[in-house]
Amino acid sequence: MSGEDAPAEQQNAVDQKQETKPAEEPKAEPPKTEPAPAAAAAADATATPAATTEKVPEEETFTYRALVLTGYGGYDKVKLQVKKGKPALKAGEVLVRVKACGLNFADLMARQGLYDRLPSPPVTPGMECSGVVEAVGEEVTDRKVGDKVMVLNRFGLWQEVAAVPATHTFLIPEGMSFEEAAAFPVNYITAYMMLFDFGNLRPNQSVLIHAAAGGVGIAATQLCNTVKDVTVFGTASASKHETISQGGVTHPIDYRTKDYVEEVRKISPKGMDIILDPLGGSDTHKAYNLLKPMGKLITYGTSNMLAGQKKNLLAVAKNWYHQFSIHTLSLIQGNKSVCGFHLGYLDGEMELISQAMNIILDLYKQGKVKPRIDSTWHLEQVGDAMRKMQERNNIGKVILTTEPMPEEEKKEEPKKEDKKEDKKKDDKKKDDKKKDDGKKEEKKDDKKKEEPKKEEKKEEEKKEEPSKEEK
Amino acid sequence: MSGEDAPAEQQNAVDQKQETKPAEEPKAEPPKTEPAPAAAAAADATATPAATTEKVPEEETFTYRALVLTGYGGYDKVKLQVKKGKPALKAGEVLVRVKACGLNFADLMARQGLYDRLPSPPVTPGMECSGVVEAVGEEVTDRKVGDKVMVLNRFGLWQEVAAVPATHTFLIPEGMSFEEAAAFPVNYITAYMMLFDFGNLRPNQSVLIHAAAGGVGIAATQLCNTVKDVTVFGTASASKHETISQGGVTHPIDYRTKDYVEEVRKISPKGMDIILDPLGGSDTHKAYNLLKPMGKLITYGTSNMLAGQKKNLLAVAKNWYHQFSIHTLSLIQGNKSVCGFHLGYLDGEMELISQAMNIILDLYKQGKVKPRIDSTWHLEQVGDAMRKMQERNNIGKVILTTEPMPEEEKKEEPKKEDKKEDKKKDDKKKDDKKKDDGKKEEKKDDKKKEEPKKEEKKEEEKKEEPSKEEK
Repeated sequence: MSGEDAPAEQQNAVDQKQETKPAEEPKAEPPKTEPAPAAAAAADATATPAATTEKVPEEETFTYRALVLTGYGGYDKVKLQVKKGKPALKAGEVLVRVKACGLNFADLMARQGLYDRLPSPPVTPGMECSGVVEAVGEEVTDRKVGDKVMVLNRFGLWQEVAAVPATHTFLIPEGMSFEEAAAFPVNYITAYMMLFDFGNLRPNQSVLIHAAAGGVGIAATQLCNTVKDVTVFGTASASKHETISQGGVTHPIDYRTKDYVEEVRKISPKGMDIILDPLGGSDTHKAYNLLKPMGKLITYGTSNMLAGQKKNLLAVAKNWYHQFSIHTLSLIQGNKSVCGFHLGYLDGEMELISQAMNIILDLYKQGKVKPRIDSTWHLEQVGDAMRKMQERNNIGKVILTTEPMPEEEKKEEPKKEDKKEDKKKDDKKKDDKKKDDGKKEEKKDDKKKEEPKKEEKKEEEKKEEPSKEEK
Repeated sequence: MSGEDAPAEQQNAVDQKQETKPAEEPKAEPPKTEPAPAAAAAADATATPAATTEKVPEEETFTYRALVLTGYGGYDKVKLQVKKGKPALKAGEVLVRVKACGLNFADLMARQGLYDRLPSPPVTPGMECSGVVEAVGEEVTDRKVGDKVMVLNRFGLWQEVAAVPATHTFLIPEGMSFEEAAAFPVNYITAYMMLFDFGNLRPNQSVLIHAAAGGVGIAATQLCNTVKDVTVFGTASASKHETISQGGVTHPIDYRTKDYVEEVRKISPKGMDIILDPLGGSDTHKAYNLLKPMGKLITYGTSNMLAGQKKNLLAVAKNWYHQFSIHTLSLIQGNKSVCGFHLGYLDGEMELISQAMNIILDLYKQGKVKPRIDSTWHLEQVGDAMRKMQERNNIGKVILTTEPMPEEEKKEEPKKEDKKEDKKKDDKKKDDKKKDDGKKEEKKDDKKKEEPKKEEKKEEEKKEEPSKEEK
């Protein structure tokens, strides 16, 4: 099923069940930015059979493109396939024509086999998307065809159509783009529940936000700024400091060149009221020690486990070894709180989630929060999108669009050339973080280039196979 | 220093430094209930030298009675002594003429050497009291002589006068008795900070309160009832159920005859939003498993360590062995929070404490919370007072009064004879809890009788030395 050595990445692999027959382009609404959707996907050099323009009756040959995790491993394990047959709706479900999808760290973990909320491959990843309701199942009363919705689901949203429980959909407010809507649910619900449920954030408190330029980091910063006189300490590489400062981070800290614990102590000797920790491992220990009395440490990930594009057993083992474990007597004597959060494990609690969503949607309507989109990528570019996130080169959310990739984009320059600087720094950071691992791998000199939406460089990708930090 | 075999308990031992010279009775305000204070203490069979009625100028021979922990061990290790010399006030301090003192579990732990916030013996215990400001040190601007105050301190309040930082005092509101005031700070601040800071209690939530008839339990129940539609599950022996139900517990559970986890699940299959755990050991594990997603476990003690009046090494070891330790990955996958609280370790945070105190004093003024006094004991009776609490025979707060013990009280009956029933049940509970320890000790047939304020039975106490459950 898996094949660690699958040769090509991001080719538009045809679903095995139907690889013989080219199918009709999914009947999508006209994309806003690309006027010629039907022909566009065909422009890809490794063109998908779905991207032909043959016309056949829809219900007979309903097809849609879907990203499929075909096995655990590198970026190439997520392949674009064409699925046949309209998903059947169960009672309470709606069929959503997907417009945009959000990328999350859990998706990266899942690709490496480090996230247990997905069924075994082959499976379509994706916890969040936005789109339009295309059909409504029985017993659905509060959604209708044509509703613009954002969707939160355990997996399965990185595809052009998805059947999901209506309770997992939320109406997109006026003025919010599909890209913003795809960037909204996971990051904002996560940040909200951490800060306001576990964290009980109140005026005059201090919050340390790791990865402050990431999707959750930006959401958390905005939410902190809805509370009076909250001081936000945010870690990010120096090149992102201007952006996160403008976004509301009071004290940006370059964790790659400075000891963030020292930096925080300089400004706030007593420590922090709340620390959001997506890192895990030894950083959780540091966070615990950096809490004030009555402080709350909220850990919500183990991104330190992600070193290189394939599962890095040493990094995983190290993370396990350093995994934070706390005795109650220590908590009692410290008057501290340690909380764990992961939205992916909260999928049975749609009522809690809906309550949070209603509040943050109100904040959106009031202009107090707004997703920041780092970059948008075609489904064909999912590998590059994942890489951008994994290498911490993003500021804000990385988005996939289901719009077909038009031929003319191949000639254009990458959208965010200036990010390459970041990447090098991030590489340096990873090196720094892993000094104690002992020997270093040879530095890659075949630096991967980025290929955002507007550019095509399939040929170069072969060179990028060896992941840069694997040990 | 200690002497595990100190012969007498509750005799009014004279402070070694001054045992030769009888001292004047401290110049207390006339007690409300006892009209003849000066002569009263002399009535004790083992009369304190302080209880003489000689008259000498106060400033020369200022003396006051103080309870002193003379070594670690049983109830007899806390002795009533007479101290000489008026405590000198540092800047920022006030001298408080103590009227009443609260007993807390930490005091019981301290007596056994299980609480590290007290200096080594000899030391005066006592974390809270009420009284009247008798003198004001330099730089004190917001307290004046005559102010009625309640006091919170790390230790040292079980005595007739105490010099404390003015910031550790809180004005007693109109209509609150000294007994209530002595019952207020530790229990209500603890309950408030657990429920509203760590717990973030909100409408419609469910709370499990262990020892719901104890001081913190009653305070927590009242505070839960200030929030709309909160369901309170409370454990207590059956004989206390009527009282705690009237006090606001929705579902009283007899933990001695039923498995409280099963009982909770029957009513609330998904578990609890908040659990207050003063028990420690294996009960903390149960609590963790009984949490809903986004649930908060707040552990604030290890009362399971207290088995018998002297340190029970097996109970301590067992508690350590079963001590709850949690990995962050478990927290993340469960979406749970584990918090530790102990007011004794929060003494550097008077600003936080004052904020909480202001809120709960407002609730008191609104009639929404009111301390329940279980019983009031003279300083001479501190051993019995401690026993009552340790054996879980109290409903509400156990209080010490500095009023001298009048002779006529010796002839009267114990105030709460009906509690003996409880005690037997509590003994049974302890037995139940320790089944897994293996062999049982012989059941004590020399059941200790209770000697509250109105009764004297010094002779019988010798028989009670062997603690009932020690193994």
